[in-house]
Amino acid sequence: MLLEAIHHQPKSQYAYAYDEETLHIRVRTKRGDMDKVSVVWGDKYDFQPEKITTTEMTVLAHDKLFDYYQVEIKPPFRRFAYAFKFEKGKKTVFLNEVGFQEDELSQSGVGMLWSPSGMFEFPFLNAVDVNKPPAWVKDAVFYQIFPERFANGDPSLTPEGAEEWHADAVPTRDNFFGGDLQGVIDNLDYLVDLGITCIYFTPFFEAYSNHKYDTIDYLKVDPQFGDNETAKRLVDEAHKRGIKIMLDAVFNHSGYYWPPFQDVLKRGEDSRFTDWFHLRGLPISESPLNYDTFGFVPQMPKLNTENPEVKAYLLEVARYWVEDIGVDGWRLDVANEVDHRFWREFRDTVKTANPEAYILGEIWHNSLAWLQGDQFDAVMNYPVTNSILDFFVKDEIDAESFMGRLEQLLIAYPLQANEATFNLLDSHDTPRLLTLAEGNKKRMKLAALFQLTYLGAPCIYYGDEIGMDGGGDPDCRKPMVWEKDRQDKDMFAFYKKLIQLRKDYRALRDGSFTFLKAEKDAKYVAFEREDDANHFVVVMNSDEKKTKVKLPAEGSFVDMLTGKSY
Amino acid sequence: MLLEAIHHQPKSQYAYAYDEETLHIRVRTKRGDMDKVSVVWGDKYDFQPEKITTTEMTVLAHDKLFDYYQVEIKPPFRRFAYAFKFEKGKKTVFLNEVGFQEDELSQSGVGMLWSPSGMFEFPFLNAVDVNKPPAWVKDAVFYQIFPERFANGDPSLTPEGAEEWHADAVPTRDNFFGGDLQGVIDNLDYLVDLGITCIYFTPFFEAYSNHKYDTIDYLKVDPQFGDNETAKRLVDEAHKRGIKIMLDAVFNHSGYYWPPFQDVLKRGEDSRFTDWFHLRGLPISESPLNYDTFGFVPQMPKLNTENPEVKAYLLEVARYWVEDIGVDGWRLDVANEVDHRFWREFRDTVKTANPEAYILGEIWHNSLAWLQGDQFDAVMNYPVTNSILDFFVKDEIDAESFMGRLEQLLIAYPLQANEATFNLLDSHDTPRLLTLAEGNKKRMKLAALFQLTYLGAPCIYYGDEIGMDGGGDPDCRKPMVWEKDRQDKDMFAFYKKLIQLRKDYRALRDGSFTFLKAEKDAKYVAFEREDDANHFVVVMNSDEKKTKVKLPAEGSFVDMLTGKSY
Repeated sequence: MLLEAIHHQPKSQYAYAYDEETLHIRVRTKRGDMDKVSVVWGDKYDFQPEKITTTEMTVLAHDKLFDYYQVEIKPPFRRFAYAFKFEKGKKTVFLNEVGFQEDELSQSGVGMLWSPSGMFEFPFLNAVDVNKPPAWVKDAVFYQIFPERFANGDPSLTPEGAEEWHADAVPTRDNFFGGDLQGVIDNLDYLVDLGITCIYFTPFFEAYSNHKYDTIDYLKVDPQFGDNETAKRLVDEAHKRGIKIMLDAVFNHSGYYWPPFQDVLKRGEDSRFTDWFHLRGLPISESPLNYDTFGFVPQMPKLNTENPEVKAYLLEVARYWVEDIGVDGWRLDVANEVDHRFWREFRDTVKTANPEAYILGEIWHNSLAWLQGDQFDAVMNYPVTNSILDFFVKDEIDAESFMGRLEQLLIAYPLQANEATFNLLDSHDTPRLLTLAEGNKKRMKLAALFQLTYLGAPCIYYGDEIGMDGGGDPDCRKPMVWEKDRQDKDMFAFYKKLIQLRKDYRALRDGSFTFLKAEKDAKYVAFEREDDANHFVVVMNSDEKKTKVKLPAEGSFVDMLTGKSY
Repeated sequence: MLLEAIHHQPKSQYAYAYDEETLHIRVRTKRGDMDKVSVVWGDKYDFQPEKITTTEMTVLAHDKLFDYYQVEIKPPFRRFAYAFKFEKGKKTVFLNEVGFQEDELSQSGVGMLWSPSGMFEFPFLNAVDVNKPPAWVKDAVFYQIFPERFANGDPSLTPEGAEEWHADAVPTRDNFFGGDLQGVIDNLDYLVDLGITCIYFTPFFEAYSNHKYDTIDYLKVDPQFGDNETAKRLVDEAHKRGIKIMLDAVFNHSGYYWPPFQDVLKRGEDSRFTDWFHLRGLPISESPLNYDTFGFVPQMPKLNTENPEVKAYLLEVARYWVEDIGVDGWRLDVANEVDHRFWREFRDTVKTANPEAYILGEIWHNSLAWLQGDQFDAVMNYPVTNSILDFFVKDEIDAESFMGRLEQLLIAYPLQANEATFNLLDSHDTPRLLTLAEGNKKRMKLAALFQLTYLGAPCIYYGDEIGMDGGGDPDCRKPMVWEKDRQDKDMFAFYKKLIQLRKDYRALRDGSFTFLKAEKDAKYVAFEREDDANHFVVVMNSDEKKTKVKLPAEGSFVDMLTGKSY
């Protein structure tokens, strides 16, 4: 036994409440090291050898180095003192909070633990602390819209000097095409046809640029896109069609033309807004930069979200769009750079306005600190994005690495955060999927197939479903191709079919996920997804050559793409 | 290199803000495995090979299995993308968030990290999220008083049937002796003489029992102890003498005779307080128990701290004693069983009333989940208690285990939580230190010496300093011995001297702590504490036999107990 490989941390992703009565307990061991791993547990106020329970754990995930065991336990009094028991051949070792124990063991198998004082503890499962993402997210299929580029429904709003909208139009950093909210309303039935159940909008609040990330007024739809009435109509029309709406909250920084920042620029020390930002000197200087910004971009001054006035303003924004306009969620831009305290109050505000609203953080790295139930429901799953692209699209990693990277994520967070995670393959910030695949539609489809059969809510970037391509920003922000003869109908049918499959079978959204094949140097993987009703096996080969794969699955199967039976 | 032993978790005790500009980064390796460990880091928005810094880490702690490396970094823009570099002989391995990397490395040494996207991140150091315990705690020496048993200053309040107060009095579960707050006021100068700077009171609010943990009125001093005016006078008199006051908040459960619980008992479903508790049925039944309690004690019904009225009431209690009466801190009884959300609001309330108030949780196990800056300043350090007792008093573990257990705690929390931790050796819940030592005063002194020269604030249980003994509850709750000829003057002088030493030298409170000797099977340890001004070496032998110890310390030393120079 390699003791150094064993890892557990109480009250973390290794020990958390899944719901109001269920705990998940996890432990890590060296890969393939153990014959049997168990949790030894009891109630700490009634800790008697004859009342100690031993529950065997199963392997939830593994990567190159480790196995990750998990078990589900419902302690009768919502509290729980525990240790781990590791068995290999004739050797048995226990781990409690004090350390490893290999000496004489008591009858209960708890060794030094004649008292519960050395045990790990989950001291009480308080319902209010449980992270419960809205149930609808598990079932959702998202569609990302960059409002300036989806559809022009109201030409009267089109900015002066806007370029003509056609399939060969070329976006630049600064040009406009005239997309607006009426354009989205007009095409909701197109999204219904595709199978979309939630639209994620990049910002549509009043701002200077075409991307609208440099906000001028957080409480107002940009006049180029319509007005707040249009937004309300959009939400209502979408809801009628079973489509929810998620907006983009850019609360880390404001735009340069946001009136409070303009006031500081003009009045300097006399401005009443000097504490609304992180200033290191006055007057404001862009070079050398003497205030905190997003990255090093002077046009995006970082907001001081510790200031009570700033907080009150942004929380009113959060409330207004959810409660008064009826949107169903917020995607939080640069969420990791805003203080945790702000997000806790944000959560209270949003969930009070609508307990079923979805709170999704934009975080590109490990996000455990935001997923404890007090801040976000889930985060944008960029590590999954990268793993899917590296394996299916770029051919840069083998199947074993692909599995290892996904499985590490599976145990990096509580399960409910992974179930409600947001899986994207591209966006307005990256080259389009088809371009990443160098035009190879087979590779693109493999990536999409994985995305649509994996845990978490998939998100399709507008136009991918009709085969749009485009390099990095601004090329990935071309106006949507509406000319029928320029749309890839086969790609559309592929997406539509897979979305329908995901909707028809709960196992593909909410069932267990297990890799069946993911070998070193291999370019194919197989996995299964299963619930009480159905058992799916998905086999995917990203090699140019055919391969024969022997699977451990038994019984008769139906090929869901062709309808053929085996 | 044993890769399986290497551990890091972003935004945890392995990566946290120590103050508003300083990050502590830690990583774990197999003990003795590495020649050199470094952090490789840069700003993610300016991530260029020539701007990447490599900073060597040093070993902060180690136990039987692991070395724990730490480094302090002040990133210029309060954000930080990083990876680790491990060197052993000719081998170099990097670890970032994606995993280990042994292949081709870039010039910067960041390997696959041509972009910052695979790096670990500390995305932004927001001041409001930093855990900053009050500075005074580091310098404090606490004294725990069980109010019914310290001194009787106002005989008019003594309950009927109280027993006589003398050195041989025998406490039972139910008897009374007449201790009160006036008795504490009368003896404040005794505490000044000993060197005490903060009194921790077990509850003195109105309650039924002699221990007062079964609260009847949280806003009122128990009439046996005085009234709220007496409490105010006590606080003022203590403050005049440089002594602070910490109270005991029993918010997990109320007492049986608390009016809201009595109301539920009487009115059942018609009570307006049914949601103030966790009921599983009505009418209330004690057997079988149909409501949640502390442990399985029917007399202590668990409070529903999710209920807004309960919350408002308890938060007013928290505010009242700090703001109106002037107490300096709260010790939170059974803190781990109350929901995290309640404690977050509690912290806001208390720190608004007095930003320098100390919030101390009673948690007996790993407490990281409460020490992130949003809940407690520190916890009662029972694992240190147990380690000191096991090594110096009970002779149950060797020096290497002793060190390992302490060092694990050192890396279990952010440093500031360890600096403000509360180190006790006994209390009203355990046998007294002298009794644990089976009357061996040498062993008792060794334990006290370690406690008074270690990190964190020491707490002396009333009477230990004059050699009082006593078994488990109720025997540990004897009335204080005031007869001079029954007090152990040598023990008092010992405590007084060590307290003075701790006060005179900042190194003993706030300096670095490093074990010099702690070997397998050994019964002695040596450690050093050092700051810019002073360098202490403490050598302690818990064996009955003398031992010669060769220390790595150089230069001339003064024996602080005898004044002799070497």
